[in-house]
Amino acid sequence: MSDTTKYLLPENRIPKSWYNIAADLPEPLAPVLHPGTGQPIGPDDLAPLFPMELIGQEVSTEREIEIPEPVRDVYRLWRPAPLYRARRLEAALDTPARIYYKYEGVSPSGSHKPNTAVAQAFYNREAGTRRLSTETGAGQWGSSLSFAGNLFGLQVDVYMVKISFNQKPYRRALMETYGGRCVASPSNETEAGRAILAKDPGSNGSLGIAISEAVEVAAGRDDTKYALGSVLNHVLLHQSVIGLEAIEQMEMADDFPDIIIACAGGGSNFAGLAFPFLGQQLRGGKDVRVIAVEPAACPTMTRGTYAYDFGDTGHLTPLVKMHTLGSTFVPEGIHAGGLRYHGMSPLVSHILDLGLIEAQAYHQTACFEAGLTFARTEGIVPAPEATHAICSAIAEAEICKQNGEARTILFGLSGHGNFDMQAYTDYLAGKLVDHAHNEDELARAIGELPEVAAE
Amino acid sequence: MSDTTKYLLPENRIPKSWYNIAADLPEPLAPVLHPGTGQPIGPDDLAPLFPMELIGQEVSTEREIEIPEPVRDVYRLWRPAPLYRARRLEAALDTPARIYYKYEGVSPSGSHKPNTAVAQAFYNREAGTRRLSTETGAGQWGSSLSFAGNLFGLQVDVYMVKISFNQKPYRRALMETYGGRCVASPSNETEAGRAILAKDPGSNGSLGIAISEAVEVAAGRDDTKYALGSVLNHVLLHQSVIGLEAIEQMEMADDFPDIIIACAGGGSNFAGLAFPFLGQQLRGGKDVRVIAVEPAACPTMTRGTYAYDFGDTGHLTPLVKMHTLGSTFVPEGIHAGGLRYHGMSPLVSHILDLGLIEAQAYHQTACFEAGLTFARTEGIVPAPEATHAICSAIAEAEICKQNGEARTILFGLSGHGNFDMQAYTDYLAGKLVDHAHNEDELARAIGELPEVAAE
Repeated sequence: MSDTTKYLLPENRIPKSWYNIAADLPEPLAPVLHPGTGQPIGPDDLAPLFPMELIGQEVSTEREIEIPEPVRDVYRLWRPAPLYRARRLEAALDTPARIYYKYEGVSPSGSHKPNTAVAQAFYNREAGTRRLSTETGAGQWGSSLSFAGNLFGLQVDVYMVKISFNQKPYRRALMETYGGRCVASPSNETEAGRAILAKDPGSNGSLGIAISEAVEVAAGRDDTKYALGSVLNHVLLHQSVIGLEAIEQMEMADDFPDIIIACAGGGSNFAGLAFPFLGQQLRGGKDVRVIAVEPAACPTMTRGTYAYDFGDTGHLTPLVKMHTLGSTFVPEGIHAGGLRYHGMSPLVSHILDLGLIEAQAYHQTACFEAGLTFARTEGIVPAPEATHAICSAIAEAEICKQNGEARTILFGLSGHGNFDMQAYTDYLAGKLVDHAHNEDELARAIGELPEVAAE
Repeated sequence: MSDTTKYLLPENRIPKSWYNIAADLPEPLAPVLHPGTGQPIGPDDLAPLFPMELIGQEVSTEREIEIPEPVRDVYRLWRPAPLYRARRLEAALDTPARIYYKYEGVSPSGSHKPNTAVAQAFYNREAGTRRLSTETGAGQWGSSLSFAGNLFGLQVDVYMVKISFNQKPYRRALMETYGGRCVASPSNETEAGRAILAKDPGSNGSLGIAISEAVEVAAGRDDTKYALGSVLNHVLLHQSVIGLEAIEQMEMADDFPDIIIACAGGGSNFAGLAFPFLGQQLRGGKDVRVIAVEPAACPTMTRGTYAYDFGDTGHLTPLVKMHTLGSTFVPEGIHAGGLRYHGMSPLVSHILDLGLIEAQAYHQTACFEAGLTFARTEGIVPAPEATHAICSAIAEAEICKQNGEARTILFGLSGHGNFDMQAYTDYLAGKLVDHAHNEDELARAIGELPEVAAE
């Protein structure tokens, strides 16, 4: 146990460009369609919601997109993030596998989300935006955008799903500490919110409703834009700093991953780690087996359909081709709130459809068991989302043990669980329920997928 | 804003020895006295509670004490801890001062406490201890010892003040995640606990009662020892890694602190940062102004007496000479639970008495205001205890601005506030009360100080 534990890069090795996998895809992405006309949408359709620089990144096929110096300067507060060799976990598992993890919980809000929040806040400030509106479920994204918006002088309005707003007051406190304004959704501030409250004054809200409120606010005010924390191409682009750093750090370790593992909700954490490695492979570099891990309660990639669907429950967004459970599918209330999305990033979906990656689904009790093993060996208490990657990494390490193979496993530890201790309380009390998805509910939701002429 | 933000050391620069300031003191510490006889106590008096290696460190005057390799190996999980230049805070204050902070919140439990918890767990394991008992107030120490004990195969029993046990369920969850057993104190497990419950079944508990329970358990079982998270010489010794690393990192920054600032409750965080710098000064090195910061609600150093007193409210401990408010003084319920101790480490008290350091006291509203400024500029949400150091650092930076002096300020950021968000919620809601100490209560408690023949 005397070798290196942490592979650290100096600040001047923060990447100077983001990596865009669109440049290396064997087939291009399916176009985004207007839900009314069924025709591909153009930049002007998105202009009320996003600044032009981000719209440009959304459709770019340039391989490298320069990271503006003010964004790198904020990244210095926590980047480059450390890459760890999980020596104590390896010893506990008695596996010949070498296990590494890239840890994004060192950011101020404790996850990978600020990697894109800072970039989005910067481009909005440059474009003259004064206010950002967004939705948040568990609060990771809302707190990250509040942090980033504050640094660039933007007001941030976060519509937080009401049941989370009430159940997670500390996430709300974190947003307010960073100067964000956090509103329980449905609220009286928007038409969408008032309509829901008129029908159901006691509504607990949903991510779909919160998106509707945030989009309505941005669409209705010239000084306000909308920000999304995952799914979109430009968000995945910004997260590529994770994998770009990990490539250098694996070189420092004089090793290379046979298997890369990350959890996927909207897909940005997964893509951030995996795409830079996949890009090398697509350009003729070493092959790597890549696993995206999702919850059995919301099995978008393993049980969903690859089809055009809405990004939100309220059907305000354009149609995107993705792995989906149907936009009206409501997953069970698992603790990994960041993985409870009915769809998957179009880029991740496309790459899965091309057979470049594989997907696995795990139940939450197995994931928390893995999370506990990790906390007791490596010290860091992982976020519920990240326990899915740990669960898969441990399973692969155990296969290595059975086969006597010394494979190299790299997984993404997307964040810490300091704000998620209720989940550990429930696990330790034996109160976690192993929700699977409901087959009837899935069949119903898939049956309601929109018909798309262009498909 | 383009220069270095974080000064990082590689793992091989984790210190190989702790620094013991007892070697450099111009006058030795006053002896620890037996409360019954008034005579100095010897190692055998402490043997039921601590392993001999730690008792040896308690009385050692060796300047350097080697850090065992298995302890350094655990330190690798987070050490060396980063030293930051607070460039964004400097800009917000528009000060000519250069402000640096040494950040200990990167440890698994989020504070400096594991620096000594790991060492104490190691020496106990070596001595054949199977179980450690300890008390905890807010839970920082209990979670750190649970983490450390688990790595060395020790059962950890934490007696947690009942009101905190009920109010801070997530700290308890963290201890249990690390495999610790957390018991609400007063409990039915000890004579001390049962005696309190017989008199007052609804007792909220206190740190004094919890210490009594933990000490009773350790004294009564051969396989069990007691562990303390601050105050004692060996605890301060282990924390010297903070300052030893900071000396190297200030050299990397090609700078040297004119002023060093840290908060002090029991004194170990303060001593950890300051003593290695003070040691250089005592050996003829550069002078540095050193400030220990305490809450106005518990002003041990600024309003207490320097006298022999008990370490606990229940009067089970030996008598130590220290700055004290009287062992029966009960401070108001400020959020910085780690600073609510009636006494101060004998070493810190001695050095204050020698005029080598100064002390300042601040009210909690001013501290949280400073904490908010810090979070909004540097990103990290500081623990309530650490906001006291920030408050003082900002005050000194503002003096620099008034005087046009470009002084170098280094402060200790002892931990993050992820588990303390209720404090920020209260601050943001305008609900914080600026407790000062109660003069009548202080006079009463000082009047009850023990009479000591040897004094």
